[in-house]
Amino acid sequence: MRMVDYIEKKVNHEELSHDEIQAIVDGFVSGEIPDYQMSALLMAIVLNDMNEREAADLTLSMMRSGDTVDLSDLPGVKVDKHSSGGVGDTTTLVVAPLVAACGGTVAKMSGRGLAFSGGTIDKLESIPGVNIAQPIERFKEIVRKTGVCVIGQTGNLVPADKKMYALRDVTGTVQSVPLIAASIMSKKLAAGADAIVLDVKVGSGAFMKTVDEAKRLANLMVKMGKLLKREVVAVVTDMNQPLGLSVGNALEFREAVQLLSGQVPEGDALYEVCMLLGTQMLLLSKLAKSDEEARSMLKQAIVSGEGLKKLRAMIHELGGDETLLTPKGMDTLCAVKKMIPLPAKESGYVVGMQAELIGRAAQVLGAGRATKEDIIDPAVGLVMHKRVGDKIEQGEAICTLYVNDETNLNDAMETMYAAVHISGKPDELTPMVYAVVR
Amino acid sequence: MRMVDYIEKKVNHEELSHDEIQAIVDGFVSGEIPDYQMSALLMAIVLNDMNEREAADLTLSMMRSGDTVDLSDLPGVKVDKHSSGGVGDTTTLVVAPLVAACGGTVAKMSGRGLAFSGGTIDKLESIPGVNIAQPIERFKEIVRKTGVCVIGQTGNLVPADKKMYALRDVTGTVQSVPLIAASIMSKKLAAGADAIVLDVKVGSGAFMKTVDEAKRLANLMVKMGKLLKREVVAVVTDMNQPLGLSVGNALEFREAVQLLSGQVPEGDALYEVCMLLGTQMLLLSKLAKSDEEARSMLKQAIVSGEGLKKLRAMIHELGGDETLLTPKGMDTLCAVKKMIPLPAKESGYVVGMQAELIGRAAQVLGAGRATKEDIIDPAVGLVMHKRVGDKIEQGEAICTLYVNDETNLNDAMETMYAAVHISGKPDELTPMVYAVVR
Repeated sequence: MRMVDYIEKKVNHEELSHDEIQAIVDGFVSGEIPDYQMSALLMAIVLNDMNEREAADLTLSMMRSGDTVDLSDLPGVKVDKHSSGGVGDTTTLVVAPLVAACGGTVAKMSGRGLAFSGGTIDKLESIPGVNIAQPIERFKEIVRKTGVCVIGQTGNLVPADKKMYALRDVTGTVQSVPLIAASIMSKKLAAGADAIVLDVKVGSGAFMKTVDEAKRLANLMVKMGKLLKREVVAVVTDMNQPLGLSVGNALEFREAVQLLSGQVPEGDALYEVCMLLGTQMLLLSKLAKSDEEARSMLKQAIVSGEGLKKLRAMIHELGGDETLLTPKGMDTLCAVKKMIPLPAKESGYVVGMQAELIGRAAQVLGAGRATKEDIIDPAVGLVMHKRVGDKIEQGEAICTLYVNDETNLNDAMETMYAAVHISGKPDELTPMVYAVVR
Repeated sequence: MRMVDYIEKKVNHEELSHDEIQAIVDGFVSGEIPDYQMSALLMAIVLNDMNEREAADLTLSMMRSGDTVDLSDLPGVKVDKHSSGGVGDTTTLVVAPLVAACGGTVAKMSGRGLAFSGGTIDKLESIPGVNIAQPIERFKEIVRKTGVCVIGQTGNLVPADKKMYALRDVTGTVQSVPLIAASIMSKKLAAGADAIVLDVKVGSGAFMKTVDEAKRLANLMVKMGKLLKREVVAVVTDMNQPLGLSVGNALEFREAVQLLSGQVPEGDALYEVCMLLGTQMLLLSKLAKSDEEARSMLKQAIVSGEGLKKLRAMIHELGGDETLLTPKGMDTLCAVKKMIPLPAKESGYVVGMQAELIGRAAQVLGAGRATKEDIIDPAVGLVMHKRVGDKIEQGEAICTLYVNDETNLNDAMETMYAAVHISGKPDELTPMVYAVVR
């Protein structure tokens, strides 16, 4: 069989076999299958879909395309978490140390920001001295010592995904549930975790725009986990507004430190999603028997300061200045030339936000990259003062912009005005959590 | 807008505008749009389709991608015909001279064989001396002199189609009604005819496998003709068995000469399809007022020998030895080392044929190309002795294979046995003509 036959099978709604999928991934990575055939196949998958078995086989073939990390010599259940990308989502910096403080083992590789969506690695680098590029042995040493380590993707992990993603990005083939699932799961599997908690974001600031699509992705990844013998739980959570109040690298890190310092109240969206993810991670790690027990362990790790200690220990091991990890210390990292409140143009209620635009506003201020080569300014971004449902008076600040370079300030302000919808009467609120799939 | 945005529009079932389609074709031909983006778009078109307006715009943009032929200084209505490809379809060699004999002006560019399907240009080259590569001015001179000329595609006609077809061939994106329609119509329009008769083949030996699909293609091309101000009639005819009895280049040419010499009876499939196409061409040329009048004119051109004279005159002008164009003369061109009858393995009725396989059997004997570089042996191929519905006795010849090189003889014989289905009781016959769309 030749690649054109595989493509035609997909066009004709036929299933691709395990061996065929392996041949496709191998051929693509080796360069034998040219981009123009791969993009045709990817488009056929986008439009004609893949079933669970095909998606699981694709995941495995992609995982096998490069190195894999062996964490089996680390103690306990190695638990990972992954978010499908969003705005103001700084859960990793909160949950990873909290779970470690509760006795868990969190060995995690994270990514950089992508388009409007932030990345944990960029946030980690906002702490002076942090080196996110660690050799695997050093990574494992840190986990052994502190129970938690988050670094950048290292080595030649899942080259198939890198090559496929670059192609998908320019060929309109990003939006495919099985392709997204295979991309996420292949990287998680290659990174060696026993158990994985997936946070599928849905809404205006997420890659999944509808709850149905997000649930399908969640279900597929859980089923793939079963086929591939890993413990996987997926939650579907709201991303119709930034999760935390801060959008920007040091700003989000500061919010994580504030939360771990007990300064963020229960009921806050970031706090609650951290509790949800942490609970699932503790349950999969067999460290808690019920949601209630897990939540109380996590709360205790905040109150006692043990969570913050874990984060400090990890930053220290990564070469960073851990003494900055206090709310006040973080303020110094968030110091900018100008803090500009954005006044509301009218009174009313915040009835909706386009979180993607809020991510883009932070990006144009310098918090994210438009191209791979752009340099991030860790201090800039914005802090929201309102959430959906809040009342607001004309002239009251919607948010504060943290600005060092005013070149794109007008663009950022206009983008924020377009992103935050104010109306005379309040609208129905969207739920914070849509589903927990296990 | 960037190419990825155009692709995403098609993924999301949105319409591409005239200007967007023009930008896509221009960008692809210039090389600005890489193959991998074009193949993704082509696949999106295959699976999400195009409407008539989009297909017409695509046709025009493709046509404008290169040179166009101006036939306006030739007298009368310039009428062209095109068949969507089949096995044993030698209608052009019959109809073009017949229509010229009836006073029509036929200026036609033809293609080579493609996969299992024969090509008029290859058949013309089976006559020693024929040069199918003529400059446009000489082509027009021949038409002016004889009323008919068929040559190969000349100059830089529709480079967009050449480049798109090469990509479609290897990316599983051939099967798309609007893409097929745009490919055919852009070439026909660029070749300058005022009126076009299209023969859409359907069945086991055609690119269109279902009548519905073939009718859709026929309807689309007729509607595109109206949008593009050309007179277009499309017929949908059967290709569930070879149209003529001969499959092979000189063999098919011989059958055309036999028909033009009055040796093929009315009711014969090739004869009747030639009458149908010739009738439509005469009607579009305003040389006949009714089907009956046209048919009687065409019959008269056979009986009088005027049709054969036109074919001889054309071959003479193309540099060929026109004295060979008698049934006996053609026999000398069809002389091979071995003529091998293929005996039926059982008695019964011929209930069906896979015409594509019959084309492939002729191809492996040397009548067609597996790759562009293969050299055709004009004399080889096969002549069928049975048609669907015929009774056959065990041992009786299904066909005679015309063989010079026995290397693939076994392959050809096995392919023929697989292609011709014999059963104890006769099956229902398929119609010869499914639709005439105008």
